[in-house]
Amino acid sequence: MLDSNIFKKLARGPQVVLIKDAAFVSAFTGLNPGDKVIDAGAGSGWLTVYLASIVGKEGSVTAYERRTEFAEIASKNIVKAGFESVAKVKVADIFLGIEETDLDLITLDLAGSPAVLKFAINSLKPKGYVVGFCPNIEQAKDFVIAGEEVGFTHIKTVECDEREWLIRPQGCRPVTMGLRHTSFLTFLRKPKEKLPEIKDNLENQQSEKTETISQSNETDLIK
Amino acid sequence: MLDSNIFKKLARGPQVVLIKDAAFVSAFTGLNPGDKVIDAGAGSGWLTVYLASIVGKEGSVTAYERRTEFAEIASKNIVKAGFESVAKVKVADIFLGIEETDLDLITLDLAGSPAVLKFAINSLKPKGYVVGFCPNIEQAKDFVIAGEEVGFTHIKTVECDEREWLIRPQGCRPVTMGLRHTSFLTFLRKPKEKLPEIKDNLENQQSEKTETISQSNETDLIK
Amino acid sequence: MLDSNIFKKLARGPQVVLIKDAAFVSAFTGLNPGDKVIDAGAGSGWLTVYLASIVGKEGSVTAYERRTEFAEIASKNIVKAGFESVAKVKVADIFLGIEETDLDLITLDLAGSPAVLKFAINSLKPKGYVVGFCPNIEQAKDFVIAGEEVGFTHIKTVECDEREWLIRPQGCRPVTMGLRHTSFLTFLRKPKEKLPEIKDNLENQQSEKTETISQSNETDLIK
Amino acid sequence: MLDSNIFKKLARGPQVVLIKDAAFVSAFTGLNPGDKVIDAGAGSGWLTVYLASIVGKEGSVTAYERRTEFAEIASKNIVKAGFESVAKVKVADIFLGIEETDLDLITLDLAGSPAVLKFAINSLKPKGYVVGFCPNIEQAKDFVIAGEEVGFTHIKTVECDEREWLIRPQGCRPVTMGLRHTSFLTFLRKPKEKLPEIKDNLENQQSEKTETISQSNETDLIK
Repeated sequence: MLDSNIFKKLARGPQVVLIKDAAFVSAFTGLNPGDKVIDAGAGSGWLTVYLASIVGKEGSVTAYERRTEFAEIASKNIVKAGFESVAKVKVADIFLGIEETDLDLITLDLAGSPAVLKFAINSLKPKGYVVGFCPNIEQAKDFVIAGEEVGFTHIKTVECDEREWLIRPQGCRPVTMGLRHTSFLTFLRKPKEKLPEIKDNLENQQSEKTETISQSNETDLIK
Repeated sequence: MLDSNIFKKLARGPQVVLIKDAAFVSAFTGLNPGDKVIDAGAGSGWLTVYLASIVGKEGSVTAYERRTEFAEIASKNIVKAGFESVAKVKVADIFLGIEETDLDLITLDLAGSPAVLKFAINSLKPKGYVVGFCPNIEQAKDFVIAGEEVGFTHIKTVECDEREWLIRPQGCRPVTMGLRHTSFLTFLRKPKEKLPEIKDNLENQQSEKTETISQSNETDLIK
Repeated sequence: MLDSNIFKKLARGPQVVLIKDAAFVSAFTGLNPGDKVIDAGAGSGWLTVYLASIVGKEGSVTAYERRTEFAEIASKNIVKAGFESVAKVKVADIFLGIEETDLDLITLDLAGSPAVLKFAINSLKPKGYVVGFCPNIEQAKDFVIAGEEVGFTHIKTVECDEREWLIRPQGCRPVTMGLRHTSFLTFLRKPKEKLPEIKDNLENQQSEKTETISQSNETDLIK
Repeated sequence: MLDSNIFKKLARGPQVVLIKDAAFVSAFTGLNPGDKVIDAGAGSGWLTVYLASIVGKEGSVTAYERRTEFAEIASKNIVKAGFESVAKVKVADIFLGIEETDLDLITLDLAGSPAVLKFAINSLKPKGYVVGFCPNIEQAKDFVIAGEEVGFTHIKTVECDEREWLIRPQGCRPVTMGLRHTSFLTFLRKPKEKLPEIKDNLENQQSEKTETISQSNETDLIK
């Protein structure tokens, strides 16, 4: 069991993803031990650590972060949490492309994230997810539209609200003040069979076909 | 990656825990591969499957269910989801006691759950969690009071709300109708050093001391 | 039009009812010009002023407040807002009884309010409302139970949530932090024909009968 | 007291404004007996009746509705509710202009409402309000931007949520299913001193000055 206090002990840099939202990301995508994940931008690595704690040693989390100072904080936090064998930070600009392939999940918590989706669709496994964190609703809308344009299915866009209660012998009530908003969470999924695209040469079509055949061997329940 | 559609394919019996709530349970307790869990009452086994998908082959989930017909549905669902090596259903009445020990997490989704807490405190590892699902607020209150009486720390009681948005080129808005309530989720935690209890003999005190010493070797971050 | 800024200009004493909740009280009870209201306890008179602004010169609001210092603040606020011809503060203990009769609405925002309901039922017109402000849910429950015991119909108990949005050219989103809870609002209504009570003399029965006859003349739409 | 059941008795045509939202409109604008209001589009007249019930005989509500069939339903509902001396329906297209002046409040519940704001600013009293009902967030944004362009101050944009509870001896909890969204409510206010506009002749400037002087006589608290 990951010590949930760990999140309080990690060094903080930029604004972090909250556990409530991380919870929705992993649960609604069905994240599992062994899964292969990209987390961009890493910030101080809080979400990276959370995702690493679930995919475990048989899985991997690659955290993209282009700002060196945050990449260093993230790396230190990963070591501090004991996940250096699962997660690593890559000082790279994800807007230039994604090298990794065969991914189960990509999380995008950065301004301009819709521009990353054209790379994401090719790096994910069929039925893999990309989840966008968008503070403003317009960003969520752009994310959905850009995602559908490159072939993703829009599963859903949600707000996650955690409302805490005071439970006391003398009387119970919700806390008076609290958090009202973090981000809109958008879940996009790569279709099982990627829709045919307009191809400019035969080679692409063949590799596409090969991928489709290999898919048919997967079990219908668990990838 | 667990196919999140799997939850739609499992046979349904009694009312099931929703993914939104299961998400909070695993994320706020820091559930990890290798963890040892009890889930009572299992119902049709949906939460059992979810928890099994996170703890993986190195972990275990024991689902208590006293009603034979639900135990059978739960067993079939576990097999259908491919987790028969991780999770098993035990046709037993958890109000009579918990045999398992050294647990990381116990989930209690059954009427009268406060009466189980006196067993739960002894079956959990130090810093382990018990999470109660209580539809009514009075049940959550009783759960907290009963938990504190046997030595648990009340971490928090929350409502988890998932609010879905329609994202459309012509305009975005939350969906009109939807779910307003499932359960109050209460998180109780066994203290790192269990509070001294009134002992009736010296032997118990010594074993308590030994446990405390062995704890000091654990890393402060990850159990 | 009442200057909505007026609420910022009134002297503050004890915690005040918020406009969002006052809005529900007047709208869901159908409060109108000419209505006769009791507001207890008055506190610094904010709700008194709000109610007075709706019932106008043909109506009346009597604010019960037993603490002299708050009664003075409330009186000054009523004058400051220009409603001295509509509302007055009565330094009295409502737990000892309500002298006024033929009321349209009684608002109860004080600890122990269920004990007032046995007086409220007799002071209200048929179809009149009593609205309770209860911070804790147990208080709301006691309020409903006590109300039903003396003959009220429980119309509903609600939470009123006002969620504010930042609307900006660069992006829209809900505000980050804010209010999560004030009070549970409980609406009890006196039945059109009061249920027969056990009478200890004939006189009471006759006055009761007279009241019932006069009711039949009221229009069905507007009292 | 307006019988709150009246809203159930009125004939329904198009989608109606809910009491929860009407409550916010009247309370946050400080609507009072004697106020002068325009309600567009009237639809079946529910909001018209609600507003009329507050402004009373000394006030007035003019309901704009360009679709004859809805105008007829609205008229019948106004009569049915007994407010024919307060409210009237005008079969007119508010996008062509607003004849009425010196208004306290204009409510706009129609597609394309931002285009009405240039008329609204001139028809309102200083410190008067216009409230927009926008189902989609983009509409609320357009409403705010268009309003600020013609001189309104954006007071706030909110969502009003009414969450109902089941209060029962055996246990209390929020209702399971319910309404999650109606409209974003946007409150725009005409400044006390209207900002100077570019004038094309001296006459306009003078009438503007006169208006400013007469304003200084109003009491600071109640218009």
